Amino acid sequence: MPSRSSCVSTGLASEPHLPETARVNVEIINTGSELMLGRVLNTHQQWLCRRLADLGHVVTRQVAIADNARDIQNAAREALARADLVITTGGLGPTSDDLTRELMAELLGRQLVKNDRIRAHIEERFAKRGWTRPPATDVETLVPEGALFFLNAHGTAPGLAMKIENNAGPTAAGAKWLIMLPGPPRELRPMFDDQIGPWLKREIKSGIFVCRTLRSTGIGESRVQEFVQTDLHPLVQRGLEIGYCARPGAVDVRLTAGGSEAAKLVAEGEAVVARILGASIFGKDDDELEAVVVELFRRKGKTLALAESCTGGEIASRITNVPGASEIFLGGVVSYANSAKEQLLGVSADLWQQHGAVSEAVAQAMAVGARTRLGADFAVAVTGIAGPGGGTPEKPVGTVYIALASAQVVEARRFLNIWDRHTFKQVTATQALEWLRRMVSA
Amino acid sequence: MPSRSSCVSTGLASEPHLPETARVNVEIINTGSELMLGRVLNTHQQWLCRRLADLGHVVTRQVAIADNARDIQNAAREALARADLVITTGGLGPTSDDLTRELMAELLGRQLVKNDRIRAHIEERFAKRGWTRPPATDVETLVPEGALFFLNAHGTAPGLAMKIENNAGPTAAGAKWLIMLPGPPRELRPMFDDQIGPWLKREIKSGIFVCRTLRSTGIGESRVQEFVQTDLHPLVQRGLEIGYCARPGAVDVRLTAGGSEAAKLVAEGEAVVARILGASIFGKDDDELEAVVVELFRRKGKTLALAESCTGGEIASRITNVPGASEIFLGGVVSYANSAKEQLLGVSADLWQQHGAVSEAVAQAMAVGARTRLGADFAVAVTGIAGPGGGTPEKPVGTVYIALASAQVVEARRFLNIWDRHTFKQVTATQALEWLRRMVSA
Repeated sequence: MPSRSSCVSTGLASEPHLPETARVNVEIINTGSELMLGRVLNTHQQWLCRRLADLGHVVTRQVAIADNARDIQNAAREALARADLVITTGGLGPTSDDLTRELMAELLGRQLVKNDRIRAHIEERFAKRGWTRPPATDVETLVPEGALFFLNAHGTAPGLAMKIENNAGPTAAGAKWLIMLPGPPRELRPMFDDQIGPWLKREIKSGIFVCRTLRSTGIGESRVQEFVQTDLHPLVQRGLEIGYCARPGAVDVRLTAGGSEAAKLVAEGEAVVARILGASIFGKDDDELEAVVVELFRRKGKTLALAESCTGGEIASRITNVPGASEIFLGGVVSYANSAKEQLLGVSADLWQQHGAVSEAVAQAMAVGARTRLGADFAVAVTGIAGPGGGTPEKPVGTVYIALASAQVVEARRFLNIWDRHTFKQVTATQALEWLRRMVSA
Repeated sequence: MPSRSSCVSTGLASEPHLPETARVNVEIINTGSELMLGRVLNTHQQWLCRRLADLGHVVTRQVAIADNARDIQNAAREALARADLVITTGGLGPTSDDLTRELMAELLGRQLVKNDRIRAHIEERFAKRGWTRPPATDVETLVPEGALFFLNAHGTAPGLAMKIENNAGPTAAGAKWLIMLPGPPRELRPMFDDQIGPWLKREIKSGIFVCRTLRSTGIGESRVQEFVQTDLHPLVQRGLEIGYCARPGAVDVRLTAGGSEAAKLVAEGEAVVARILGASIFGKDDDELEAVVVELFRRKGKTLALAESCTGGEIASRITNVPGASEIFLGGVVSYANSAKEQLLGVSADLWQQHGAVSEAVAQAMAVGARTRLGADFAVAVTGIAGPGGGTPEKPVGTVYIALASAQVVEARRFLNIWDRHTFKQVTATQALEWLRRMVSA
């Protein structure tokens, strides 16, 4: 998931600039003392906002609070006064600080009722692992009177949805909903995708709202903006909103619009951006560069090998995050020490002694070694200086050589990636993947 | 920075459970439409909460809203009614959707006044790059009457702090503060560390507040809690707060306390947890397992080689995230295809044909191959079925063999890691790193 980076939006002349047609007000409440102590990063906000936007709902407010009964009830009371749909995360587990289920039932004046279907589900989960259900999970079998529940395919606590008949709220829908989701992302995400999302689609009408992100690489953020903004200006005046987001080695251009013209405006914007940025666009929306590369290799029936020095396995790890990568990815070598380059890739000691381990010649030899030893159609190799130590005036920290080998050609390019160590690895991996994408697309 | 996982807290009998001695209520308001569309991750919350906790302040609420005048003013009005210190992020830039400065001045009835010192600073920044100051930055030179400003060392928009004489609030301090920070992390973070933090220390008294996290692995979250909670109970009654946070393959135990007893309580709690969990604790606070392993190897003068199948480079990538990893890490093989196991690690075809690629015998042969070919003291090898495809009744998806080879011994263990593909890789990598840690500590 991309982390927050340098992101700007334009075309926000009038307020509220989020499309008025998203008529359902949605608010999110994230509970957890660990959030307020800054001990963990709140990834739920982005994930849920994204999913809700894809369903046509725009989140108007997100609140994070500690596991504190008074604060949780206050936040829920305030949110329900403003919003038509309130989603809470966390606090449904079996321990003493998991307060949400009880607090929401109390707030809305509902009894908690034992549910046998949930109990059976939890027992089954434990039985599968040969364990008996701990008594602490009793609380997870409780459902507020009249609430819907969503069984947790990846955990024990079910999700809950409470309908609140609307007597004062602004919505035309006649009711508000309070949805409670479990805190762990590996439980929350599939529950939302498989159950809550489809249910929301049926239950709650959304406004027309279209969002499309075009993902590019190889051009800096300010240049991307400079290139496209003039041609997009007429569309902005008609209501298209444009956002730019710089990520390590990539830039996203986000096009959003609301109302009956939304799809048309976004499609026209997309055509403009595609015309101007051309082959620099590697994908749309949630497309990841590594998935695009794997898919291209699969479609062309080609195989891939890797030789990584300074990226230290980052490229291999990104490739193998893609389900089905084993169809195209034969393997890779993380040749951190020079001896590994020699032993595993057959890069002769002469070569790195003469040119240095970070050199065009060594990058090429690594790529050739990986390709021939693994019998792959293509190999990409990376050698460079991640830092913080190891730079020289001639080859400063950030210097990288990337080489690409196929049956026909061996080529190397030099890059200068001046970033912290972690970003350096990500940027370099993106450059290598992008070169593979262009090579195999050609 | 660890991302959010399953986290719970106990010892929250009475509310508010965040230490009462943190007498200053702090709230954070993050503005940005890109946040509400889920296009970027809000990293400001964790970063600021952490920094403020280090200064002895606990954030009681965080709110994110779109770049919308009405919502921004409402959120600020509500926060100022509750809190003694309100920090906003974003909306100070030169474009039409940067509204915060003007909205806050209006909310508090202050005029905006041009400031020559800021103008000179901005002009200087542009001049250094050979550019003239764009007129759009005029707005950045405006300061609400009576506000403090903090020059931006990494951008143009200064930070602003407005003092609000307290006539109704709950604080004893006699005043509230509204602080506005620029949105880009590369501007906000150094501004906070170099200017805002030191200023807060002088201006705003904080309570004594101590937080310590003990990081463990190899024991599930509910077991960790079960093991330690009885012995911690007396400390909880004296005011110690305990939180548990499950991460892929690891569990954090967080001990927090406020007041004059804080350091003593936390130290006593730490001793209890250390006694009970013993060697399962791999580190404290921000320690990462891979960094602990690299440091142990370095201290003992040992070297490491890797052979990864199902983790696909994840272990190598984590090891090489650690600065100085090259001192101990020789290299690794990502042997995704069986041919790669044979070619690069010398695992004979007989072996995997007889036992299957996911087997104890192949894991051991991979470890031995990596160790001997790379000439390392230790090698760890991993082979398993990440899924979603590839499982059998005998070896279901999630089956993993991890093998460890040294000059003395070769050993393999079977694990069953039933997770989504990405979590599977992380959990398996953690198990392998943990085994290395124990092996080299012994």
